[in-house]
Amino acid sequence: MLFDVEILKKIDEELKKYVDKNDELYNASKHLLFAGGKRLRPYLTVITYNLKKDNMEEILPAAAAVELIHNYTLIHDDIMDNDDERRGKPTVHVVYGEPIAILAGDLLYAKAFEAVSNIKDSKKAHDVLKILSKACVEVCEGQAMDMKFENYNPTMEEYLEMIRKKTGALLEASVEIGAIMADCSEEEKTALKEYAKRIGLTFQIQDDVLDLIGDKNKIGKPVGSDIREGKKTIIVIHALKTLDEEKKRRLLEILGNKNIGEEEIKEAIEILKPSIEYAKELMKIKTEEAKNYLKIFDEERRKVLEDLADFIISRIH
Amino acid sequence: MLFDVEILKKIDEELKKYVDKNDELYNASKHLLFAGGKRLRPYLTVITYNLKKDNMEEILPAAAAVELIHNYTLIHDDIMDNDDERRGKPTVHVVYGEPIAILAGDLLYAKAFEAVSNIKDSKKAHDVLKILSKACVEVCEGQAMDMKFENYNPTMEEYLEMIRKKTGALLEASVEIGAIMADCSEEEKTALKEYAKRIGLTFQIQDDVLDLIGDKNKIGKPVGSDIREGKKTIIVIHALKTLDEEKKRRLLEILGNKNIGEEEIKEAIEILKPSIEYAKELMKIKTEEAKNYLKIFDEERRKVLEDLADFIISRIH
Repeated sequence: MLFDVEILKKIDEELKKYVDKNDELYNASKHLLFAGGKRLRPYLTVITYNLKKDNMEEILPAAAAVELIHNYTLIHDDIMDNDDERRGKPTVHVVYGEPIAILAGDLLYAKAFEAVSNIKDSKKAHDVLKILSKACVEVCEGQAMDMKFENYNPTMEEYLEMIRKKTGALLEASVEIGAIMADCSEEEKTALKEYAKRIGLTFQIQDDVLDLIGDKNKIGKPVGSDIREGKKTIIVIHALKTLDEEKKRRLLEILGNKNIGEEEIKEAIEILKPSIEYAKELMKIKTEEAKNYLKIFDEERRKVLEDLADFIISRIH
Repeated sequence: MLFDVEILKKIDEELKKYVDKNDELYNASKHLLFAGGKRLRPYLTVITYNLKKDNMEEILPAAAAVELIHNYTLIHDDIMDNDDERRGKPTVHVVYGEPIAILAGDLLYAKAFEAVSNIKDSKKAHDVLKILSKACVEVCEGQAMDMKFENYNPTMEEYLEMIRKKTGALLEASVEIGAIMADCSEEEKTALKEYAKRIGLTFQIQDDVLDLIGDKNKIGKPVGSDIREGKKTIIVIHALKTLDEEKKRRLLEILGNKNIGEEEIKEAIEILKPSIEYAKELMKIKTEEAKNYLKIFDEERRKVLEDLADFIISRIH
């Protein structure tokens, strides 16, 4: 699937309005925002809105809001996780130092809610505010869970709750906000929420799959990083539940061991193969379910959301 | 002036609703929030609202919002400024580590906007959102200026802009939000904004005065900390403009010198005496101006706002 470049251009123009100053703080805020992100979230907001309405002026502030929130979380997460690179570029705190990076995230956070306040209709602004602030709470809770899991073996249920909050919540909000702005009926909103839940899940699973079998130049980090970091992805959790004792023992030896080399990573990926297949199957099922929920919408208009669901599990970065 | 304990109690009860979980993230978020702050901002919101209306249920979410924002900024500022203590207690990042402290601030930020979304009337929620998000942007810009001033000699105008943004913006917003919630007329809102601008300024000046002539047990830090840190307060800027060459030279020797002892601090305070008097005079003038703007309101109802203006410049911590 190709993203509509006209929409992407309009999203970028809208985003620029919020960071249109040229000092250290604003430059730090722009560093990641214009470093080649996919704009998946604001795009979702726009194309959900387009199911029923076409007034780009009306939807752009809401679309900008979700992207600004996404970028604030990335800047702060990189500080918390001590990550030096993102999208092949040094992270904000590496370039500007931690204090300015914290502040740049805080500024984008404020700008996101300024963007919500730019929605003209008060009832819609109010509804969007409810959805977005709740999503922001969940993103924080998810990140806290993720950090806790570094020293703790989560169950499948705990892992699923963590990724739903950390990654799913804002993707779901992006769709819900599009639905609110388009004056969708309650029935339509419910269907879109179910769609969003599923693509939120498949988005994260595909990230986990790509970490194991992706192209390191495309994903922007070495293959198997999650294995070295000992991340309890859905694939790992499935493997630990289904492997025989010997393979399980060997996987646990490799997992989270900072001293392992390429060979052990390859070995772990080999052990994980059946679970990668399981993850791929699960994504297919969830994608079909997601698309089924769209059936109540106009066939032509819903196509781009269907394609997006497919894109999420076929993307290579 | 004594703050009305009934109002304070209701503000605390409202705040508790937003952080009513018991895990590491929420405990970190509560650490400072219930560590004995003055609640000046939510109190301002409530008593401004009380100029015209008395429905506590209506105003409490808005009041909670400004206090939650204030607390997020304190947690993040303490990380940026590397401060280990606040209100005589270890700061959040000292107790919980930097990653959780960043996240605790981010959570309170989200909760503040969740509180705004709890305002029932959509038009009012929308108006409050506009004011609060704009104030949040200014607070970030003010903090960036403050950090920049550590290695740079600001002019009086630059210093005033910095404190207006860093400290004044949220105090002003607290009053404006009270005015919006009380359905004040445009004329009343304008008067309250002028009041708020002046108490925002006197609040910061009194902080600077207390640093020089306060009681270290009351202000929770050693007297003269600002001198050691080389802060360009309104008092210092006035002194540098008015002192004779010899005193000016001596003040500049002491200012920002980390190796100075009690003696030099005392000497600097002596040199600054006329400028402290200037600051006190300025506060008196601004406080009278602030109170004059309240004259359009009911005499009995405005009294608590008049008293608050006086309290701000007579407080000892």
